[in-house]
Amino acid sequence: MFTLFTAGDTGDWRITRCEAVRGDGLLAAARLAIATSDLLAPSSHQPPSHQPWQLAGFASNVRYVERAEKIALTRVQAGLGRPEATSAALIPIRKSAAWWDLTQEERRDIFETQSHHIADSMTYLPAIARQLYHARDLGQPFDFLTWFEYAPEHADDFERLVAHLRQTPEWTFVEREVDIRLTRA
Amino acid sequence: MFTLFTAGDTGDWRITRCEAVRGDGLLAAARLAIATSDLLAPSSHQPPSHQPWQLAGFASNVRYVERAEKIALTRVQAGLGRPEATSAALIPIRKSAAWWDLTQEERRDIFETQSHHIADSMTYLPAIARQLYHARDLGQPFDFLTWFEYAPEHADDFERLVAHLRQTPEWTFVEREVDIRLTRA
Repeated sequence: MFTLFTAGDTGDWRITRCEAVRGDGLLAAARLAIATSDLLAPSSHQPPSHQPWQLAGFASNVRYVERAEKIALTRVQAGLGRPEATSAALIPIRKSAAWWDLTQEERRDIFETQSHHIADSMTYLPAIARQLYHARDLGQPFDFLTWFEYAPEHADDFERLVAHLRQTPEWTFVEREVDIRLTRA
Repeated sequence: MFTLFTAGDTGDWRITRCEAVRGDGLLAAARLAIATSDLLAPSSHQPPSHQPWQLAGFASNVRYVERAEKIALTRVQAGLGRPEATSAALIPIRKSAAWWDLTQEERRDIFETQSHHIADSMTYLPAIARQLYHARDLGQPFDFLTWFEYAPEHADDFERLVAHLRQTPEWTFVEREVDIRLTRA
């Protein structure tokens, strides 16, 4: 099951900002449509000319979370689609070849022991709901697409979360990042 | 980049055996064709009627190997395509939901600490070359497709390797396995 994010003139989310944080950005568009598909069709690589871009990814099993963290996350996190969560962000990132040359325990060390990615993000739950989609193995231009949803009253919390993550040792491996903000249409 | 394994009447590998080890098997066929594709087209899910089956997967970054193991593997392992490696095996497996509910450190514990998957397999290198393809995230009927290549004189070694792996604690999580043997046509 793939999740397709299609920018264009239609879709349930209005794009309010689309900024390149590092590396190349993405073309501006009015709306974002989110759909799921069992097939990865050519359109996900070569979108029709009326679509500025389309990104595909898949949700998967956890790669870094350990048992105690999984229990804590399951207890506290919220799902997508809460009526009050009318603000959203889509943050596609690509990490460097150096990151992908690391082994599992080296990546976990940078991700959590040095950067506290799980522990620090957890302090923003359940206000900020998020879903990670993997894209690198699909030959996509990004490695990960992370989708966040929150109520407008938590917008400042979300800014603190992303600003914090961008200052971690993990983020020195990010070579492309785009920050797309949205509101439910 | 996806790798497609297509059973049918054409292909560089002659299928000599196709046995269900656990769960449902796969239809018999004369040949296996191996190709790569940037797209996952509908045919990989619904093969044309003249093709008994088609399986797709992707090579990816290592998930369990640690640094010392990676160094040792890189030093000793052989690549695919050696002229003398005219025997091959394709072993698709699917693991249970219980496996996928485990966290990373729990899977590593079963995979290596209890089952010695890396350490024991390494004793068969470089005679047995292999490549792992991930399939679960593509919605395929199997989680992993492993391709092995070896010279006919190492056939007994290969039998010992697969017999050994099937007796490990890791294998108690395997709920479907097919064992396909081939020779270069």
